[in-house]
Amino acid sequence: MAVTGTNQSPPALSATAHDGDDSLPVVLIHRFPTFTGSLFPSLPTHFRLLDLLTTDASNLQSATAILCVGPPPPVTPEFLDRFPSLKIVVCSSVGVDHVDLPECRRRGIVVTNAGSAFAEDVADYAVALLIDVLRRVSAADRYVRAGSWPVKGDYPLGSKVSGKRVGILGLGRIGSAIATRLAAFGCQIRYSSRKEKPSLPFAFYKTALDLAANSDVLIACCALTDETFHVINGEVMTVLGKRGVIINVGRGSLVDEKELVEFLLRGDLGGAGLDVFEDEPHVPKELFALDNVVLSPHSAVVTPESIGTLQDVVIGNLKAFFAGQPLISPVID
Amino acid sequence: MAVTGTNQSPPALSATAHDGDDSLPVVLIHRFPTFTGSLFPSLPTHFRLLDLLTTDASNLQSATAILCVGPPPPVTPEFLDRFPSLKIVVCSSVGVDHVDLPECRRRGIVVTNAGSAFAEDVADYAVALLIDVLRRVSAADRYVRAGSWPVKGDYPLGSKVSGKRVGILGLGRIGSAIATRLAAFGCQIRYSSRKEKPSLPFAFYKTALDLAANSDVLIACCALTDETFHVINGEVMTVLGKRGVIINVGRGSLVDEKELVEFLLRGDLGGAGLDVFEDEPHVPKELFALDNVVLSPHSAVVTPESIGTLQDVVIGNLKAFFAGQPLISPVID
Repeated sequence: MAVTGTNQSPPALSATAHDGDDSLPVVLIHRFPTFTGSLFPSLPTHFRLLDLLTTDASNLQSATAILCVGPPPPVTPEFLDRFPSLKIVVCSSVGVDHVDLPECRRRGIVVTNAGSAFAEDVADYAVALLIDVLRRVSAADRYVRAGSWPVKGDYPLGSKVSGKRVGILGLGRIGSAIATRLAAFGCQIRYSSRKEKPSLPFAFYKTALDLAANSDVLIACCALTDETFHVINGEVMTVLGKRGVIINVGRGSLVDEKELVEFLLRGDLGGAGLDVFEDEPHVPKELFALDNVVLSPHSAVVTPESIGTLQDVVIGNLKAFFAGQPLISPVID
Repeated sequence: MAVTGTNQSPPALSATAHDGDDSLPVVLIHRFPTFTGSLFPSLPTHFRLLDLLTTDASNLQSATAILCVGPPPPVTPEFLDRFPSLKIVVCSSVGVDHVDLPECRRRGIVVTNAGSAFAEDVADYAVALLIDVLRRVSAADRYVRAGSWPVKGDYPLGSKVSGKRVGILGLGRIGSAIATRLAAFGCQIRYSSRKEKPSLPFAFYKTALDLAANSDVLIACCALTDETFHVINGEVMTVLGKRGVIINVGRGSLVDEKELVEFLLRGDLGGAGLDVFEDEPHVPKELFALDNVVLSPHSAVVTPESIGTLQDVVIGNLKAFFAGQPLISPVID
């Protein structure tokens, strides 16, 4: 998750500027050296922040809480060994595939994520990608900017959004927000999820394959786990069919990217709207020439307006942890 | 309204192939020579079609019905003088600004439009343009295709859609469909329209200026009339403000395009999503370099899936006229 762009000149990371009041609870900051943003200006007023990149490790044996910011480095068993007192890993992202969840559970360490802070932003963007692919918005914009309209005439029509059967892979906070939006377009919503949700008015399919067989569009917005790695594979693409569309706002590896490129190049898939890729920031160059794909640099996740909400979730989780209260957004493995 | 693209190789116009059964009611076809599409394959089974471009005018004195297809030539008083028996002008478009409505009323000629056939398609596209401008979808796609992501880093964040105050200019079929969709995004809908609609849960503003003063985004989807020509002028843009966004899916001349370009170039407006222009297919070239605008070649109006619905509306209006029944979609001037 990239919440600050390099073009945005964010202020320096708060943790490097303020080690904070000695009487405050200690929170370790886990980040890549390249992450220099400051998401959480209120953080130092509540906690004593110790940046793992700039703090002497011998001081950290008693730390119980770690905050992962930016797209953080992996939280592996070896990493956890360095912090024997650790009880909580607070992540500023929705996806926590950088954290070894089974290992955390084994050690009694709880993990929290961004909760619903970004659900609206991701859902908004997913809908934009879907309409864009079906109605060819970005491609038509290129057509106009290239000066082709007066020369080549009208741009070919796209395909209708209303009425489409949309299969949502993962009906969590983001998936539900997507469903609410697309239902208002008159799309027929169906889903696949770890568990059926009988209270919802949408058809449930047990597998991605069944979902694909009953959908015109597949939207991937589930967590990336061992079970969901390449959940959209060649078989699913075949069943989705030549006019089928894939939208991915989850993680790149939910989709077998190599297969996806092959299917698109052969014309065996109708189109794709991709915000995430298997080897970011690298995007398969074969896609650059295709007008039935929309390519997005992991932009769905957040807007400046949502960062305040994220700060509330992060600080709320840390405060609840230190107060022994229920956490706001624990990750259920 | 352009319902067939030059890249789509439509079949030849039905009217030129079938003059039809002499016992069927006569319908004149009004089109530009450049229009060669066939929207309505069922038409010749119901009516005897006489193409004005290929039929001897002396045979047309008794004709009572005209169907305007493609983007048709203007229906002026001089044009109407040629058909003294005319009682109905059936248009295949939503907008009927090519028809002299007061003159038709004066002569007792009724006019029908496409009704709600395209409302969903236009509304879907309007929402896509809105999210695209706010979240920079097309611009980010250009960024990725240019290979900039690995070189320049993350693309700057866009602005949140959910919660935005969206002012809809014209709450007819299209405006209402836009409102339904954007309400599901958590946008705050308000509108300006010829008449207040007290049954709707949206705030009403009497003028475009008042609406702009209370909106973050203005969406133009009203009919183009003498009253709405340049309804979004420099004063409205000033009130909308530097972060304000204009979406136009109505007619180019609803917006003072010259002013719009100036405002955008000066940075006095946040962005624009434009499907229509004052001198189509010509788009102001100054806009081509801007990343906060999305340019679309009059694509919002229709998808192939909607053409069947349009055919039903067109044939339904003509059948109702010849049977003396109430029309499906009369234009209320």
